Amino acid sequence: MKTDVIDSHAWQRLQNLAVNPYDLTAPGALQQDGRIAEMMCDSAGLRLFYAAQRINAEVLAAFQEFADEHQLVDRFKAMRRGAVINRIAGWESENRQVLHTSSRDIFTDQAKEPESARQANAEFKKLRTFLEEIEGDSAFTTMVNVGIGGSDLGPRAVYEALKAHNIEGRQVHFIANVDPDDAARVLTQIDPARTLVTVVSKSGSTLETRTNEALVRSRFEQAGLEPARHFIAVTGKDSPMDNPENYLRSFYMYDYIGGRYSVTSMVGGVSLGFALGAEGLRTFLKGAAEMDDACETHRVSDNMALLLALLGIWNHNFLGHPTLAVLPYSQALHRFPAHLQQCDMESNGKSITVDGLPVPVKTGPIVWGEPGTNGQHAFYQLLHQGTEIVPAEFIGFLESQYSRDISVDGTTSQQKLLANLMAQVVALATGRDHENPNKRFSGNRPSSMIIAARLDPLNMGRLLALYEAKIVFQGFSWHINSFDQEGVELGKVLAGRFLEHMKDPQKCGTSIEEQFLEALEISRNAASSQR
Amino acid sequence: MKTDVIDSHAWQRLQNLAVNPYDLTAPGALQQDGRIAEMMCDSAGLRLFYAAQRINAEVLAAFQEFADEHQLVDRFKAMRRGAVINRIAGWESENRQVLHTSSRDIFTDQAKEPESARQANAEFKKLRTFLEEIEGDSAFTTMVNVGIGGSDLGPRAVYEALKAHNIEGRQVHFIANVDPDDAARVLTQIDPARTLVTVVSKSGSTLETRTNEALVRSRFEQAGLEPARHFIAVTGKDSPMDNPENYLRSFYMYDYIGGRYSVTSMVGGVSLGFALGAEGLRTFLKGAAEMDDACETHRVSDNMALLLALLGIWNHNFLGHPTLAVLPYSQALHRFPAHLQQCDMESNGKSITVDGLPVPVKTGPIVWGEPGTNGQHAFYQLLHQGTEIVPAEFIGFLESQYSRDISVDGTTSQQKLLANLMAQVVALATGRDHENPNKRFSGNRPSSMIIAARLDPLNMGRLLALYEAKIVFQGFSWHINSFDQEGVELGKVLAGRFLEHMKDPQKCGTSIEEQFLEALEISRNAASSQR
Repeated sequence: MKTDVIDSHAWQRLQNLAVNPYDLTAPGALQQDGRIAEMMCDSAGLRLFYAAQRINAEVLAAFQEFADEHQLVDRFKAMRRGAVINRIAGWESENRQVLHTSSRDIFTDQAKEPESARQANAEFKKLRTFLEEIEGDSAFTTMVNVGIGGSDLGPRAVYEALKAHNIEGRQVHFIANVDPDDAARVLTQIDPARTLVTVVSKSGSTLETRTNEALVRSRFEQAGLEPARHFIAVTGKDSPMDNPENYLRSFYMYDYIGGRYSVTSMVGGVSLGFALGAEGLRTFLKGAAEMDDACETHRVSDNMALLLALLGIWNHNFLGHPTLAVLPYSQALHRFPAHLQQCDMESNGKSITVDGLPVPVKTGPIVWGEPGTNGQHAFYQLLHQGTEIVPAEFIGFLESQYSRDISVDGTTSQQKLLANLMAQVVALATGRDHENPNKRFSGNRPSSMIIAARLDPLNMGRLLALYEAKIVFQGFSWHINSFDQEGVELGKVLAGRFLEHMKDPQKCGTSIEEQFLEALEISRNAASSQR
Repeated sequence: MKTDVIDSHAWQRLQNLAVNPYDLTAPGALQQDGRIAEMMCDSAGLRLFYAAQRINAEVLAAFQEFADEHQLVDRFKAMRRGAVINRIAGWESENRQVLHTSSRDIFTDQAKEPESARQANAEFKKLRTFLEEIEGDSAFTTMVNVGIGGSDLGPRAVYEALKAHNIEGRQVHFIANVDPDDAARVLTQIDPARTLVTVVSKSGSTLETRTNEALVRSRFEQAGLEPARHFIAVTGKDSPMDNPENYLRSFYMYDYIGGRYSVTSMVGGVSLGFALGAEGLRTFLKGAAEMDDACETHRVSDNMALLLALLGIWNHNFLGHPTLAVLPYSQALHRFPAHLQQCDMESNGKSITVDGLPVPVKTGPIVWGEPGTNGQHAFYQLLHQGTEIVPAEFIGFLESQYSRDISVDGTTSQQKLLANLMAQVVALATGRDHENPNKRFSGNRPSSMIIAARLDPLNMGRLLALYEAKIVFQGFSWHINSFDQEGVELGKVLAGRFLEHMKDPQKCGTSIEEQFLEALEISRNAASSQR
């Protein structure tokens, strides 16, 4: 297997092809040679249109060569089967398996990695039993999820996406930020007597989560309620939080699943199961499992996640576009870009390879986005006429979630949404010439369209797993470790030291500039003691 | 005045200085020569720390030369006094004044542009009277704001930011997206009998807004309510919406205020006035007015908006960083980055100058961000160790909004928030060497800190106006028109044509690929007929 990105035949070939990328502004460039039908990829019920990317058959062939040369699919298979790939060779590192896919590998007798799948099954059954127990009991209408990062963004994004499928009368609130106003705002909206609180922390020691848990717990006590009858722990087995004295129930998360990949584990499972019911959750997991299987296809043009990964690398490394916009044409997906921002940037915002060497090319792009059509009235000006080219991934659905659509001017809102989505793809790609320079559109701005029938648990599971796999394939391509996050440590260490200092009002300055100077002094001492 | 960005002495000087920018990783680089105190700027009650930018006194001097050479402050003054600067010389363009600052120029007898300030005063008084009328009447507890883009993002961001200051029991919901699920979700949460609906559209013809208004109106009719007793119009005088038969009241917006700059006009005023009360709204406007005045200071180091603008240009054009992260350490500001994304990218995502010539340099960056500390557990990995350097603007507050903070491990949540904010600034700037390559931080990643006492209406007004002015100063610097949005037109035109086609089920294909092919054919015809 090739372990150097640049020293590869396919990379050189792509570099040559990138000198003169496909011109989307040429007349009929999008239609000719059956391009639309040719550049369509189906995986696990989703459909990708990529005719509006600046590629041709030669580029696709080079993608295939690159994927084969770097054994991308075989490495994905090895990951699902328990290979220890969360590591940096020769250096201290986490040295773990990467098995988020096992958390949904519960639909077969032949799980890819049996032990982790067994654990996933056991937790799912525990959860189903718990949900049945509280089902008869109509006391609980609300759940508050206390967690941050991976224990917040993913579950929240999926919860928001699938709200239309909630069990009637049930709702989930999320508290993440250490900002005390975040918790205060949620607490004004709930009736503690009818609320379950799920506290999510693998180590049981995340600063923000512990702080917020204490805050919420004190509110329950003030209300004369016993927290141990309302609080649920999602944590590592035998962590300080795995304690029946403090929690109604514990659900387990394991070291082989990183926070940002943990939506389909108990991290997302408890709140999503509460909202959607055990069957709704199961359907969501089923969708993810289907996509995982589809990612084992070797042919790039039949493997949507792999194809998206390589299109991303083409735009980022070869055409030089530093960011990626994810633009769902569904309001319910309004937090999905934030989840992907985390999952992608924390995974692939890296500078060294799995061998501890500097990566010779750019790694993960900046990922951002907001739902359409809202974004059209906001930042699309720059997408069309700005000096920075932003590749885009549009996500659309054929049907709406709620069936409360009305026809205005002869078309439904859902039709308007799809017409707008297609119009953006076409406008970005083809551009428009005009006498007035301010009305000119240079075009050649690449995008893809991902289309599903409807935003439901099944398709949401597929979509989530699609992006997880895309990110993993990109990490494999750059030969980086997409599963650790050493880059967040320094800030954490420094914040801890500053807080230690702030505890003592005698030592700590009162103005922000005094505190900033003190912080600098502390960090300087910290740095010299660590070098 | 210089009208060419590059052909300027200061630009050349900055280019030379950028060859060897200030090294933040050198020992003591942040503290030496009283740098912290030196690189601090106060404007209208906000404080900016910019010691962690890669600049020195020479760069600051070149900033001053650039600002003087291009008469940035004089042009800002001219804008406030009614100059027609929304135009492209020699070409058909909007040809308008730019007077969003007048919407808050209501605290003096000597308004900068008297006619527009008179109109702002008149609308404010109308609104105050209306709010008094409904005050005795406890019937209305809820407002639904129907608008999109500038009529949604800004008002929503400020409403969310100031929720803690709401009149007890009052709430505002926002419907923007043409996605029918967006409206459906809001409508499940309200009691129409106790709800006012504010429909915001300057022309009275925005597709999304009209569609959503029709949807909401039909729901009121189904509930046996008379929409004309619940619906308020915010629109242009004499637009189709300015009609007492359909609306309880009309408030006016004027051509001289662009959507993305309209938060302090009636566009934001009606919903914010309902939530905060007339006095709360007035305080918010006061804050904005104070900042506008502070922006007329010629000395760069005393003019925060101008300084932020030039620091942004330094990072973008000279150091080559394509994006900007805005990172508020306050959960209440969770939608503020989305508003700035619109305001900045729609204003400055341009490719031609005010003279209709190609801009020879990069214009507006990609603006994105999420609140801290959440972001720390999400995308900060890339900020610290990614291959793309992301300049950051941190926003922090000394006190929390709700006074419901608790002490965990000896410090309050607000202290934790500030400690984390400072730790990030320091870690990004200074980096850290380490034997293990995966624990190395290269540093030299620039950021600024904006600090205010508390997130209240006054400081929110200041913060909003600060960013508006920053964006305007950058537009002046690049000699572009920051006030039009021709880049959104093509997509709108194409979507309209596709919808026209979709109306006829006989002509329109059923599968998405058929529809996409039809869309391409339509756009091709459209393009050739327009050229």
